[in-house]
Amino acid sequence: MMKRNIRLKIEYDGTRYQGWQKLGKNANASTIQGKLESVLSKMTGESIQIIGSGRTDAGVHACGQIANFHTDCSFSCREIKEYLTKYLPSDIGIVTADEVSERFHSRLNAKQKTYQYRIAIPGTVNVFERKYLWKYPETLNIEKMNKAAAFCLGTHDFLGFSSVKKTKKSTVRTIYSIVIEEEHSEIRLSFTGDGFLYNMVRILTGTLAEIGAGTRDPESIFHVFQSKDRKDAGITAPPHGLFLMNVEY
Amino acid sequence: MMKRNIRLKIEYDGTRYQGWQKLGKNANASTIQGKLESVLSKMTGESIQIIGSGRTDAGVHACGQIANFHTDCSFSCREIKEYLTKYLPSDIGIVTADEVSERFHSRLNAKQKTYQYRIAIPGTVNVFERKYLWKYPETLNIEKMNKAAAFCLGTHDFLGFSSVKKTKKSTVRTIYSIVIEEEHSEIRLSFTGDGFLYNMVRILTGTLAEIGAGTRDPESIFHVFQSKDRKDAGITAPPHGLFLMNVEY
Repeated sequence: MMKRNIRLKIEYDGTRYQGWQKLGKNANASTIQGKLESVLSKMTGESIQIIGSGRTDAGVHACGQIANFHTDCSFSCREIKEYLTKYLPSDIGIVTADEVSERFHSRLNAKQKTYQYRIAIPGTVNVFERKYLWKYPETLNIEKMNKAAAFCLGTHDFLGFSSVKKTKKSTVRTIYSIVIEEEHSEIRLSFTGDGFLYNMVRILTGTLAEIGAGTRDPESIFHVFQSKDRKDAGITAPPHGLFLMNVEY
Repeated sequence: MMKRNIRLKIEYDGTRYQGWQKLGKNANASTIQGKLESVLSKMTGESIQIIGSGRTDAGVHACGQIANFHTDCSFSCREIKEYLTKYLPSDIGIVTADEVSERFHSRLNAKQKTYQYRIAIPGTVNVFERKYLWKYPETLNIEKMNKAAAFCLGTHDFLGFSSVKKTKKSTVRTIYSIVIEEEHSEIRLSFTGDGFLYNMVRILTGTLAEIGAGTRDPESIFHVFQSKDRKDAGITAPPHGLFLMNVEY
């Protein structure tokens, strides 16, 4: 029998969570997926399994995570959104809930994602967003960062820019754009690509920060593509500055 | 002997604090003033007393609180800012530190202040700023609020819009402007005046919210001015939506 397929757009403050995904080995950890499944299962009386567009690491935030789930319930999308809004913790918000075709799959159909990383400019003050900014201590040269970012664009094997262990799966990804903007008291890096490996945005950000600080050359990007060795890339920027902004289908 | 006079512009997240002012009866409570005095006294080896432009209540925030203190120390303003930035908790930030004339007094010389109050629009999602928004459950009619706000402008006895107990001090204040803006997922009310009584901005906001929700008439403002009775005004909006934005001298 055909089930309804509901798509959610979700915003969350990842500070308190062990990431998006419920993990087999640690099924009791607090995850966004776990919170959603628990509230939806209570609402429907079914054992709801929710499919996210992809994982986000512990401490990483989202403005536009997409997820879907199948259900036999007869609640309207509006009722589903209202029920979730009422019973989810205040650090998880439902932006939209829509009924979609039975074939829609949040992960498999994702065509492109955008992540944003926020770095505080040294000497500036922003106490209200302090939990969402990486306090990198050096002044960054955006011109150098842009030069290095251009080297990252296109299709490459990003294994060296990831925390992926030996795998048979492809580690080739395509980055369509990296936009670096200085706004108010911060520098924002926006990465758009067809997909990102484990820790890839955080390692790219850490590497670009070292390049902006002058402790690494823009050309060192090529070396990492060649060696495919994580040790040749820069530090992993901390999770609290990272936001999954948007998923395109 | 003449002491140096240092003026600070301070930003703080008031969530964790019992307000700006150290109170005699509760000298151990956590206050912004107390934190500043403690760090400055340690830095200078003097017993520093800091003068704020005015109190903010427990839970109220500031982007532009002004304070000054006198000292014999020889640290530069830059060193003072850096020391404070290093040793203050991360929810208190020093925007600027400047040396001013010995006659400058943060409270007595204040000519005008601006407060902003932020109300979330029902049904919208903003998990990242959830601690700074009042979740008022009703949809607000901004036209009605603007009509009532216009009645508040000018010089009035605001006793009925305050939590001030019987006092010999004047409760007459002048409001120069009230600007109500809808931006993204929130409504922002900005109040500029020559000074505000205890709880006055929060009671004005609560009253304007009830007027926007339609449970109170704009003309009820006049009744409060006439009766001077707190019971005739609306509810006191909670502290977490309120920001001291600016003090003019």
